[in-house]
Amino acid sequence: MTTSAENVLQRFNERIGQIKSYEEALGVLYWDLRTGAPRNGMEARSEAIGMLSGQMFKLSTDPELGEWLAELEQPEVISGLTEIHSRLVTETRKDYDRSIKIPPKLYQEYVVLTSQAESIWEEAKEKNDYAMFEPYLDKIITYTNQFIDLWGPKATRYDTLLDAYEPGMTTAELDRLFGGLREKLVPLSAAIAASPHQPETGFLHQTYAKDAQKKFSLFILEQMGFNFNSGRLDESVHPFATGLNPGDVRITTRYLEGDVTSALFGTIHEGGHALYEQNIMKALIGTTLCTGTSMGIHESQSRFWENMIGRSKPFWNRYYGDLQKQFPNQLDVPVEDFYRATNVVRPSLIRIEADELTYNLHIIIRYEIEKLLFNEGVKASELPALWNDKYKEYLGVVADNYSEGVLQDVHWSGGAFGYFPSYSLGNMYAAQITDTMEHQVPALWDMVGRGELHPIKDWLTDKIYQYGKLRTPAELITSITGKSLDPAYLVSYLERKYSDIYRL
Amino acid sequence: MTTSAENVLQRFNERIGQIKSYEEALGVLYWDLRTGAPRNGMEARSEAIGMLSGQMFKLSTDPELGEWLAELEQPEVISGLTEIHSRLVTETRKDYDRSIKIPPKLYQEYVVLTSQAESIWEEAKEKNDYAMFEPYLDKIITYTNQFIDLWGPKATRYDTLLDAYEPGMTTAELDRLFGGLREKLVPLSAAIAASPHQPETGFLHQTYAKDAQKKFSLFILEQMGFNFNSGRLDESVHPFATGLNPGDVRITTRYLEGDVTSALFGTIHEGGHALYEQNIMKALIGTTLCTGTSMGIHESQSRFWENMIGRSKPFWNRYYGDLQKQFPNQLDVPVEDFYRATNVVRPSLIRIEADELTYNLHIIIRYEIEKLLFNEGVKASELPALWNDKYKEYLGVVADNYSEGVLQDVHWSGGAFGYFPSYSLGNMYAAQITDTMEHQVPALWDMVGRGELHPIKDWLTDKIYQYGKLRTPAELITSITGKSLDPAYLVSYLERKYSDIYRL
Repeated sequence: MTTSAENVLQRFNERIGQIKSYEEALGVLYWDLRTGAPRNGMEARSEAIGMLSGQMFKLSTDPELGEWLAELEQPEVISGLTEIHSRLVTETRKDYDRSIKIPPKLYQEYVVLTSQAESIWEEAKEKNDYAMFEPYLDKIITYTNQFIDLWGPKATRYDTLLDAYEPGMTTAELDRLFGGLREKLVPLSAAIAASPHQPETGFLHQTYAKDAQKKFSLFILEQMGFNFNSGRLDESVHPFATGLNPGDVRITTRYLEGDVTSALFGTIHEGGHALYEQNIMKALIGTTLCTGTSMGIHESQSRFWENMIGRSKPFWNRYYGDLQKQFPNQLDVPVEDFYRATNVVRPSLIRIEADELTYNLHIIIRYEIEKLLFNEGVKASELPALWNDKYKEYLGVVADNYSEGVLQDVHWSGGAFGYFPSYSLGNMYAAQITDTMEHQVPALWDMVGRGELHPIKDWLTDKIYQYGKLRTPAELITSITGKSLDPAYLVSYLERKYSDIYRL
Repeated sequence: MTTSAENVLQRFNERIGQIKSYEEALGVLYWDLRTGAPRNGMEARSEAIGMLSGQMFKLSTDPELGEWLAELEQPEVISGLTEIHSRLVTETRKDYDRSIKIPPKLYQEYVVLTSQAESIWEEAKEKNDYAMFEPYLDKIITYTNQFIDLWGPKATRYDTLLDAYEPGMTTAELDRLFGGLREKLVPLSAAIAASPHQPETGFLHQTYAKDAQKKFSLFILEQMGFNFNSGRLDESVHPFATGLNPGDVRITTRYLEGDVTSALFGTIHEGGHALYEQNIMKALIGTTLCTGTSMGIHESQSRFWENMIGRSKPFWNRYYGDLQKQFPNQLDVPVEDFYRATNVVRPSLIRIEADELTYNLHIIIRYEIEKLLFNEGVKASELPALWNDKYKEYLGVVADNYSEGVLQDVHWSGGAFGYFPSYSLGNMYAAQITDTMEHQVPALWDMVGRGELHPIKDWLTDKIYQYGKLRTPAELITSITGKSLDPAYLVSYLERKYSDIYRL
């Protein structure tokens, strides 16, 4: 490499490090807002978040960065770069092209708005007051539409949003994938509803002391291989995971005294996200590649741990005794009953508490609403009615309040339109990866039955975690499973599992 | 004002807001580091802190800011400014002149260093390993000496450091103030030691459950008027208070199961700092004037609440019953015994656990060591011996380990040389202010005896808290008490109080 190119590469690396540091600081500020920041400090905090985001945005859209990228993209330069630097150039180019189209002031306003909106959403949900949240949502949609215009609409306006969460994903492709799911899951769901072998679930809803739940959450995380010197578990209204760096990955859960499964599977879910972030290779630390490669792949890891492992029979054969020790009075049923109860399939109102089968219908509802918002110009004021209509149509249930209806999710308050499909993409990726794992690790379920979960974490580190953003979702799924994403694996997994549980 | 001046004022205000936002973000990052951030994330976190501090430093030392200041300082402009803007210009000029002398790269290195050093100090203290900390301390001293050279030494090199914490304070003045204290406190301390009426303190060191201590800490904060919607209480090794903004003021305490007084008075102390920060006037929010005016005045508020109120007889006449309810088995002695036990005067090793009389000797030791470091070129390697010699000479006690000796305080790991004198300045300010309060509020001690503490908070808000940095320490003490700082008030307060307790 020439001295000039080396010089450019050094300045480029410094800039990437700065951007990553802003990301880390903002990550702490958001985590703090959600885990106990005093309410009266919200306004000043929103200002600080807006200002830092603005500064980060400036660094990410600086014309100098554009010049460095152009230099590093010269064939004779990029061919001499390491794999990491080369991928950094590609990824940064993508972000840069996307970002320079947004005026910094507009972006900063948007960040202040969404930061305030999240607190307002929390209050509105608590108070069952949609009118309180609606003007914020309305503004967020207006900003998002401005962004779509600036970025340039793709095949549909909504496609422009999807691409930010799952690179290359389109409405056409999602229609196909979700169509494939719907076609098979509707009859399966009907067969399950008609089965005379319905699990008894009442015992799950006795009183489960929060402290004992917390103890078990910490125990299970440790079993999964969560490193407590590189992370922590806290509480928040809406559980989340945030990887500040591989040495500081924070997850939250929510303890409901009347439902032992909420924190239990929530913790395992966020723990799956955390294992991904904790095991990214050291060489990526301090770069913008040091994070999960897409929302869909990230979600595949939380789903894999929550559903494929955490709701499997071998898992509970091993761990049910430990859970019983925490709740000897409540859990006096055999493990088989517990396993069946935690895998009950039943249409419900709340996405995050839905079973792994009907969950996909919750996602399809949100996907269709988001398509309507951006492709058909539907307004925020129409959402409560729309929400209820779709729930009635797909799940046969209707919320009699906003908190359990249109206000249930945090996502829209943060402007995360196009995010929801990731959850079902995650389910599909997870099922397809599990199929490969079963072939490559024949003793898989015996190991789970013995509580040997670390080899699974190691397998996933080897195939996925270590790479961070060094591989694209498509590269990962193809290199691991030999095929591109196919909904048939999820369908077949669900059919096999629930035919057994419901004796279909 | 001309359009040009108005334009400059607007840009100046925006810049001040940006600087304040960086301060807030850094405040959260430091708070987080001290209250439970995972250890393995330390390195990346230090990078982020260093980068943000560097960015803030750049904004604070930008030549453009210098030009705006010069414009706003024009007599015809500054005379038309509001009091707040005028004071902002004065304060910013002072910081600007001090900051532009430090090269940004040097400052950023220093911030990364001190951020790492604090974690290393924590570990070194835990492991009783001075050698582990020494190279960090050595580097911090070297950097500090570079800073003194860049700022320009004053009458002595150490004076340059003092000025940062207590504007205008000098070694000569401190020698006078501390001399006045020492002269009276040494014979008083001797008379106390010779008294046959020594309080019995054994009962304070039974086992006091942490949960009950925490409950009482929260109760007392609420009684003092701490607003829990504008702040929170956490735990850390070294208790501290941090005012992110008046709506988010965070304090920490440390619960020792074998010593009920540690968290008790620690909480009241940090609570005093918090009341100051929570009650700064709204008009200052978002500006760099929105904080305490000096370390000495800040400390006067924590000391006032901890000692003048929290260790007074009327206070315990009111609250002892509540404390007994938490610890009925441990606290079976009369209130008079409890009052005397919590006011025992006894030379000891640990500054933060020292009584309010000998505490001043702990400070004088640190003051003298810091003078030696910067005025006589003493090295970090000489500190352990120096420390022990001074403790032997002033307090008659010597630590047999580093953790209770030279490693006991966090301050030097953060480069806070010149800070320690603030504590005794705080004691002197507090005594002088209490004297005025007693004259202006004749029912003061009756109110304390009835648990009416909010009027005291209101009086202090009126005289001190609301102004933030809008008044200098000298302006405050003169406007409140009609006199400049005089050690006689503290001496007289201590003589009166301890003559009674020890029946001198």
